[in-house]
Amino acid sequence: METLIEMTRNGKHPEWLKKVAEYEGVDLNLLVKLIAKGEVVVPRNVLRDEDFQAKAIGRFMSTKVNANVGTSADYVNVEEEVEKARVAVKYGADAVMDLSTGGDLDYIRRRIMEAVNVPFGTVPIYQAVREKNVEDLSEDDFFRVVEKHAKDGVDFMTIHAGVNKMSLERLKRSKRLMGIVSRGGSIIAKWIETTGEENPYYKDFDYLLEILKEYDVTISLGDAFRPGCIADASDRAKFTEFIILGELVEKCREAGVQAMVEGPGHVPIDEIETSVKAMKFVTKNAPLYLLGPLVTDIAAGYDHIAAAIGAAIAGMHGADFICYVTPSEHLALPTVEDVREGVIAAKIAAHAADLVKEGQRERARKRDYEMSVARKNLDWSRQFELSIDPEKAMEVHSRRKSKGEACSMCGDLCAIKISREVLEKAKD
Amino acid sequence: METLIEMTRNGKHPEWLKKVAEYEGVDLNLLVKLIAKGEVVVPRNVLRDEDFQAKAIGRFMSTKVNANVGTSADYVNVEEEVEKARVAVKYGADAVMDLSTGGDLDYIRRRIMEAVNVPFGTVPIYQAVREKNVEDLSEDDFFRVVEKHAKDGVDFMTIHAGVNKMSLERLKRSKRLMGIVSRGGSIIAKWIETTGEENPYYKDFDYLLEILKEYDVTISLGDAFRPGCIADASDRAKFTEFIILGELVEKCREAGVQAMVEGPGHVPIDEIETSVKAMKFVTKNAPLYLLGPLVTDIAAGYDHIAAAIGAAIAGMHGADFICYVTPSEHLALPTVEDVREGVIAAKIAAHAADLVKEGQRERARKRDYEMSVARKNLDWSRQFELSIDPEKAMEVHSRRKSKGEACSMCGDLCAIKISREVLEKAKD
Repeated sequence: METLIEMTRNGKHPEWLKKVAEYEGVDLNLLVKLIAKGEVVVPRNVLRDEDFQAKAIGRFMSTKVNANVGTSADYVNVEEEVEKARVAVKYGADAVMDLSTGGDLDYIRRRIMEAVNVPFGTVPIYQAVREKNVEDLSEDDFFRVVEKHAKDGVDFMTIHAGVNKMSLERLKRSKRLMGIVSRGGSIIAKWIETTGEENPYYKDFDYLLEILKEYDVTISLGDAFRPGCIADASDRAKFTEFIILGELVEKCREAGVQAMVEGPGHVPIDEIETSVKAMKFVTKNAPLYLLGPLVTDIAAGYDHIAAAIGAAIAGMHGADFICYVTPSEHLALPTVEDVREGVIAAKIAAHAADLVKEGQRERARKRDYEMSVARKNLDWSRQFELSIDPEKAMEVHSRRKSKGEACSMCGDLCAIKISREVLEKAKD
Repeated sequence: METLIEMTRNGKHPEWLKKVAEYEGVDLNLLVKLIAKGEVVVPRNVLRDEDFQAKAIGRFMSTKVNANVGTSADYVNVEEEVEKARVAVKYGADAVMDLSTGGDLDYIRRRIMEAVNVPFGTVPIYQAVREKNVEDLSEDDFFRVVEKHAKDGVDFMTIHAGVNKMSLERLKRSKRLMGIVSRGGSIIAKWIETTGEENPYYKDFDYLLEILKEYDVTISLGDAFRPGCIADASDRAKFTEFIILGELVEKCREAGVQAMVEGPGHVPIDEIETSVKAMKFVTKNAPLYLLGPLVTDIAAGYDHIAAAIGAAIAGMHGADFICYVTPSEHLALPTVEDVREGVIAAKIAAHAADLVKEGQRERARKRDYEMSVARKNLDWSRQFELSIDPEKAMEVHSRRKSKGEACSMCGDLCAIKISREVLEKAKD
């Protein structure tokens, strides 16, 4: 069986790719070329059927949003997690990851996968550490979970292969305040430290790729060393990991496995451009998957806003895939309402980026143009329709209606109304 | 009487300015010099007493946030507007503007001013058009309201003096989609069009300055032609107004009146830097007061997030004063809860900007550093204390508590805990 990247390299493409190109408004041949080069990925497990909504992530493609759902040891309510996944997709998430760490993980993963029809990702190491203590994991355990998830039909997996003895040494010498804030990264670092062995995902990366290749699973190279606070941003540990990830991207491409790369973390706004561009350089334009970045540490309760600021800036400079952050980040497992807030904030950032992204700019601007026409015409139902969250827009508007045709903010002194009179009169 | 700008030019300063310099963590002599040059303003009506919390706005100063409150023709609930002003200040607004256009405007303005002790602004033309139809306003009416507000102790006023026959002609030739979206701007444009006369604020700008000077009121030169949608961003009308505002800033400085300049509007993220820098160039570094900018038109119901993205980017490039935007923007008069959301979003943007702003960077980063230390120590009460909204952070955290010392997101798999073990062990 040929993987997608292999097919496109031979100038072929599966039938379903047409729909993906159409969805992006890009030429199919361009999409095929970009996949072949590894600058775009379309995560899709071979077990997926025709109904599956595959999405393209990368250069010239619209900026995508991922929503993380999943239980923790403290909260295991499977149906709530399923509901979160549904709500995420309803509000525009392009992909869903199950990060469950509590309860029957196989059951939960399968339930959530059944509930949504978008690219679905996992972090297999989370399941491994639920079955054994970190120090007791065998090298085989690392791969067994990957294969299990692949067989379940998972489309992309975060694998923290950039943590190795060398990069861990660089991390220690970086004298970070927050150390490692990636769950998977901290687990693997602990395994390396306690066993004295090299990270199996790094050491046996070729074997990992064989498993992934069999199901055409896309690898998402985890950012184990993403900075966890402003004080640690743009440090040597982070750049060291970028370099390792860049090397691994080349291996993926050689092996015919699609790869994307995950990025920082907490980053002050004036360092985001450098981070994003550095990652694009060292990975030779691999699609970039960002969590946040969070532009301050103090926005607890509103981290979706801190992340939206970072994501928009990152998107402007080349980030392709935004992992949402909810208002619960750093504080608790999110609620369904938090998921909605998180998705919307990330969608706003993604759209703001698309308004200036090469290949998407014209298409994205059409919607803003239509919205502005509706706004000028004080056509409220059309404005709601074009809003990022029509229900919310309608709800806010009807809470306090105006007696006239404008809104209750300005009432009869609506600038749009007055200006329309003035400027239209001027045209006569 | 000498105005503040005149005093500082003579190398003097009022006693109360010491507190302002302390609040900013800047050297008093530097502050005096920046005020003298017009690169920083400290809006403060001469009628203010010692209790008044004056704030410095401009270069090297922390990024400030303004909250607009006020009635409309459709909703007149004075006590709710007072409550909004109080809530805004509670959550960190540095200034409040009363934009009321419904009810007894004198009474409302005075009630809100009594309730808060921060720089207070108004847009006098709103009151003028409540007393007469636009076309019936005499030139004198334009100035009468300014004088009344000055006598009431208002610290800064938005005056749309950049609308004149020339700039209106440029606007018409710009063939904008949305025309004028500034209420004050549309009123003055209508007055010019219907009377055939020049904007009194422009024509008799010197007279205006005489009134303001008597009470040492700071002028905020209104951005009547701010683009109201992405399609109109960075057009010729906007740049024309910048130029006029730059000329007027020079007149203010010559007359000894403090001046700041208001800016766009709706701007795609990759054009914000240009707008901000262009305004700083043509106004010779006048403090820049931005509404938003909004980075997309489609975020109705969540415009506080679209504005926070724009404000952070603008702040990074030199904006000094951020006018908050609430979730109700474009839809309705905001509620008290909307005011809280709007202020917090703007504060996040302002803080993200301060983390990289010359003169504020080190001070702003201390709080993030302390937050990160508390986070590393899993010291929850300290984390709440340092959060931008301690109540909200606490509420989210306690909604779903963990059985252990970490939060319920990761539970026992808390990366911070695991990483601490690994890296501390490594140090041994």
